Amino acid sequence: MSKVGIIMGSTSDLPVMQEAIDILKGFDIEVEVDIVSAHRTPEKLFDYGKNAHERGFNVIIAGAGGAAHLPGMIASLSPLPVIGVPVKSRNSIDGWDSVLSILQMPGGVPVATVALDGAKNAGILAAQIIGAADKCVLDKILVYKEGLKQKVIKGAEEVKKK
Amino acid sequence: MSKVGIIMGSTSDLPVMQEAIDILKGFDIEVEVDIVSAHRTPEKLFDYGKNAHERGFNVIIAGAGGAAHLPGMIASLSPLPVIGVPVKSRNSIDGWDSVLSILQMPGGVPVATVALDGAKNAGILAAQIIGAADKCVLDKILVYKEGLKQKVIKGAEEVKKK
Amino acid sequence: MSKVGIIMGSTSDLPVMQEAIDILKGFDIEVEVDIVSAHRTPEKLFDYGKNAHERGFNVIIAGAGGAAHLPGMIASLSPLPVIGVPVKSRNSIDGWDSVLSILQMPGGVPVATVALDGAKNAGILAAQIIGAADKCVLDKILVYKEGLKQKVIKGAEEVKKK
Amino acid sequence: MSKVGIIMGSTSDLPVMQEAIDILKGFDIEVEVDIVSAHRTPEKLFDYGKNAHERGFNVIIAGAGGAAHLPGMIASLSPLPVIGVPVKSRNSIDGWDSVLSILQMPGGVPVATVALDGAKNAGILAAQIIGAADKCVLDKILVYKEGLKQKVIKGAEEVKKK
Amino acid sequence: MSKVGIIMGSTSDLPVMQEAIDILKGFDIEVEVDIVSAHRTPEKLFDYGKNAHERGFNVIIAGAGGAAHLPGMIASLSPLPVIGVPVKSRNSIDGWDSVLSILQMPGGVPVATVALDGAKNAGILAAQIIGAADKCVLDKILVYKEGLKQKVIKGAEEVKKK
Amino acid sequence: MSKVGIIMGSTSDLPVMQEAIDILKGFDIEVEVDIVSAHRTPEKLFDYGKNAHERGFNVIIAGAGGAAHLPGMIASLSPLPVIGVPVKSRNSIDGWDSVLSILQMPGGVPVATVALDGAKNAGILAAQIIGAADKCVLDKILVYKEGLKQKVIKGAEEVKKK
Amino acid sequence: MSKVGIIMGSTSDLPVMQEAIDILKGFDIEVEVDIVSAHRTPEKLFDYGKNAHERGFNVIIAGAGGAAHLPGMIASLSPLPVIGVPVKSRNSIDGWDSVLSILQMPGGVPVATVALDGAKNAGILAAQIIGAADKCVLDKILVYKEGLKQKVIKGAEEVKKK
Amino acid sequence: MSKVGIIMGSTSDLPVMQEAIDILKGFDIEVEVDIVSAHRTPEKLFDYGKNAHERGFNVIIAGAGGAAHLPGMIASLSPLPVIGVPVKSRNSIDGWDSVLSILQMPGGVPVATVALDGAKNAGILAAQIIGAADKCVLDKILVYKEGLKQKVIKGAEEVKKK
Repeated sequence: MSKVGIIMGSTSDLPVMQEAIDILKGFDIEVEVDIVSAHRTPEKLFDYGKNAHERGFNVIIAGAGGAAHLPGMIASLSPLPVIGVPVKSRNSIDGWDSVLSILQMPGGVPVATVALDGAKNAGILAAQIIGAADKCVLDKILVYKEGLKQKVIKGAEEVKKK
Repeated sequence: MSKVGIIMGSTSDLPVMQEAIDILKGFDIEVEVDIVSAHRTPEKLFDYGKNAHERGFNVIIAGAGGAAHLPGMIASLSPLPVIGVPVKSRNSIDGWDSVLSILQMPGGVPVATVALDGAKNAGILAAQIIGAADKCVLDKILVYKEGLKQKVIKGAEEVKKK
Repeated sequence: MSKVGIIMGSTSDLPVMQEAIDILKGFDIEVEVDIVSAHRTPEKLFDYGKNAHERGFNVIIAGAGGAAHLPGMIASLSPLPVIGVPVKSRNSIDGWDSVLSILQMPGGVPVATVALDGAKNAGILAAQIIGAADKCVLDKILVYKEGLKQKVIKGAEEVKKK
Repeated sequence: MSKVGIIMGSTSDLPVMQEAIDILKGFDIEVEVDIVSAHRTPEKLFDYGKNAHERGFNVIIAGAGGAAHLPGMIASLSPLPVIGVPVKSRNSIDGWDSVLSILQMPGGVPVATVALDGAKNAGILAAQIIGAADKCVLDKILVYKEGLKQKVIKGAEEVKKK
Repeated sequence: MSKVGIIMGSTSDLPVMQEAIDILKGFDIEVEVDIVSAHRTPEKLFDYGKNAHERGFNVIIAGAGGAAHLPGMIASLSPLPVIGVPVKSRNSIDGWDSVLSILQMPGGVPVATVALDGAKNAGILAAQIIGAADKCVLDKILVYKEGLKQKVIKGAEEVKKK
Repeated sequence: MSKVGIIMGSTSDLPVMQEAIDILKGFDIEVEVDIVSAHRTPEKLFDYGKNAHERGFNVIIAGAGGAAHLPGMIASLSPLPVIGVPVKSRNSIDGWDSVLSILQMPGGVPVATVALDGAKNAGILAAQIIGAADKCVLDKILVYKEGLKQKVIKGAEEVKKK
Repeated sequence: MSKVGIIMGSTSDLPVMQEAIDILKGFDIEVEVDIVSAHRTPEKLFDYGKNAHERGFNVIIAGAGGAAHLPGMIASLSPLPVIGVPVKSRNSIDGWDSVLSILQMPGGVPVATVALDGAKNAGILAAQIIGAADKCVLDKILVYKEGLKQKVIKGAEEVKKK
Repeated sequence: MSKVGIIMGSTSDLPVMQEAIDILKGFDIEVEVDIVSAHRTPEKLFDYGKNAHERGFNVIIAGAGGAAHLPGMIASLSPLPVIGVPVKSRNSIDGWDSVLSILQMPGGVPVATVALDGAKNAGILAAQIIGAADKCVLDKILVYKEGLKQKVIKGAEEVKKK
């Protein structure tokens, strides 16, 4: 069975990252949540990144803000696909630092970056990655997308009634 | 066997996107290249996005520049993971338009965005996504990462000799 | 008689887009409002764009935020003039993503972009486009502009009294 | 018959603005080109803006760079739809000044802004505005869009041959 | 005797611009305040700019926000030194539009730009311009600067006491 | 008679600043040119700023790039109006550092900032400041502005001939 | 014994700068706090910078906002290492002006810049500079870093309990 | 005796970083140069950072571009002062990514950031850090600063001769 590791640099990132946890649980995909700080627990970062693919993870989601090195360093250490969530933390310059220090990885070490504070999309993307080889999860994605559509159509009807 | 669809908005994006083709061929992963313009061939966009998961693709890489709608629209239409490559095209404002119009997707429809002109990393990420469920590809990623390391170590030795 | 289609990506855009509706009603121009999400209802987007010019619309106003693809995709699909309103939505990076993903369209497919959250101006511009061929609407624009002037002159008098 | 006024702040803007002239001539739409500098010929600006709608123009295209006031000032003076082309002139800060000083017009006075150096799109948009009330021009837009599509399809075939 | 004209695009700019009025009154320099909108009262703009130097003004301070054309257009029309105050108005993109559309004037037509919302400094600069030829006003500037210094020194003493 | 001090942080700024020298000589205004580096000759900066108003200067033009402290520090030391020219020097980040470190002065100490590399406008502004109290110089400004206009009109005629 | 000078441009910077004071006191390093305004007390700036290295200081921390010239001018005047804290003051443009006018110093005169409002890190950096030659302080840094780690590990445990 | 470690992410950073080597050699300070890639040689990064303070280094200078994690990760691992040089590498977005991913470190883990491509200043800052406790090096800094001054004064004389 597939498993997604969700890590973040600080407990203060949890309110943003919770959306990734929730969406994956909604897809019945196992998640394991941890706090791993690139700058304050570098040894844990190292262990986590080096061993994730042997601990049964298929995808890692890493969220961090400011000079956000966690996603890129995990991508440096692990062969797994790493999804980066730029968090607009308290000390960020409007989120630009978070976005650029996750997105602009050098050739050879990609991070799959999603929108600022886009943890929900990180969860969906992790499910899509699993779905790339798992027909059952792919079908759930199709159902999820149909749900998005129906919600918009309902909203459109209400707007037209006015 | 896995297959990656690589599309771009214009033949002028090919020099940038070629790096994705090359890296995937280096991993012995099948690629199919096409030109799909969100703004000039919307019907083809529609067909491509709607049917990609039934045509045997596991991942789609989409590159575009300026107001770059191709990756996001494919992500709208397909349940597959979509990797977006912001291309710094001729009429782009230093690449900011390409980056933001690919990265900042709304909740529900992620695009896995890589660095500006980062087609090489898009290829590696596609391989990692396949490797998430395919031990053989995962091992190739590990070998690739070892190669990156050796190249740096060799460079370090040469610098020290001076 | 002329008719303007006003669409937006989400019901959450309605408070901003309402200004376009109001101003056009003030000019006695027929409007039809709908929710069309490029990323969640791509089929509706397709139908809307393909058929708008045969359904009696003369101009389309499309508002969206973040990676805002709605205006550009409608412009891809329709021969009508499309006015884009960049909405500073909750998950936008200070509005830059909304502005750039609407404004920076490639050669061949223009979107007439107005200011961030500038739905009022989108309405006026739609009226001006109709007025380009309709003397009666053009005269209403002249009256409207005279009204703007009188309001400033009144404000100036009050400031001078102090 | 319809007529489009194309003005620019300086003869140095002509290489960029020529694309608007060419595309409109391709649509058999009459154009009249002039140099009108908001900052160096304010009287001419005033006369031009005040009288354009009585001189038979249906649309005005205005291009300028840096602190680009020409499009907005014409929009202030004329009831006609005004299309603004931000030109990346020699003394512009990467085009941001040109874009923002044309796009961010206050409520009441819109400028239909196109992409940086997007004079070609300004021409197409002017044709679309005329086409909003002129079936014959609308049909030409449809033909033009079909041409864009065919060019992409041909490019795709060549890419696939390789 | 010297006189400074203080104009702004809208009564909503008055809270910011009041600081310029207050500081000049503190220097016993005559001010005349008016609302002149480049986009809504272009005729008034024209008259004001054309005649200011014959109506006894020595300096003009003009404040505006968004696509802020008032300072530059007055500078176009008048031979007097024009001080521009970029106002961070409600519809401005973090003030960047206000700053760039005032600062980036083309060669030949300068605007003396001060900081975002820097109306107080606009007032001081106007006094310095008058002081450039009026020893009495220059002395007041010297006294004012001495006052700034004493206030900092007092603040430093209080900080050291803690 | 009036005199303008033109200083810059480095001899490498001279090609940009030469335009200020030339335009002022064209207005028959005396200029004195010097190199004063805020960061490398702070004592000279101090002497220059403290004494400029007693050495017969009426206005100071200061050009610098990067973290450009020269204009602001001169404004700190002198009661004279100081015009700042942001220079896009070799190590500048697209000129943003030069612009912001000159423009964004705190309340109490203005710098009259002109466009990036806008030394020509700095010269004209200095002449306008002198012209604020000197009818003869004011008349020269009017003649200069008339010259700008004639050049545009001539350019317009040539464009129309084509 | 080592001593750190902590200065700031205004008493309004104290809430931000207090973190530098607190962290250094926590390391038992002597601090001396003062208000020195580059723009309002240039003589004090001059004296402070010229004499700091003879008054027993080893490091200077300087905080300022907007066009922030204090850190760079102290670095101009003193041979000591100067740490600059960009303060996001009330009149700053999202902090960009503070950051760029401190960071982008010309070759020859460095300022060790920390994050926006990063006074705490300025204090730690000052301790590290002292620790570079003082084994006792270096050991305190090691203990401090261990404390950071333990706090993250505790946070991780609490997150896992949920 | 003091020793400075100079590391960079890639041999392609060497042309920029050479300035740091040269300036430190000019101060007779021992340097040791190495290539350490955070993303390609994470184990070497780990060893380097963990042991630098026990290998006799007093200061570390780390240069990197794009999503530049090397300086921050070394600062995470080492108690020594770390100077970060943002390099404007080939794939950087105008240097903004390099600057922000080095500068915006979270509380607890500072990086002393210098200007974009400011390796020369990194070398001088390292010397100043050593000079904070070493009178002999401090005197060399004073001599160096005097040299900067004399060069400007000579340049000023040449400008005046013209």
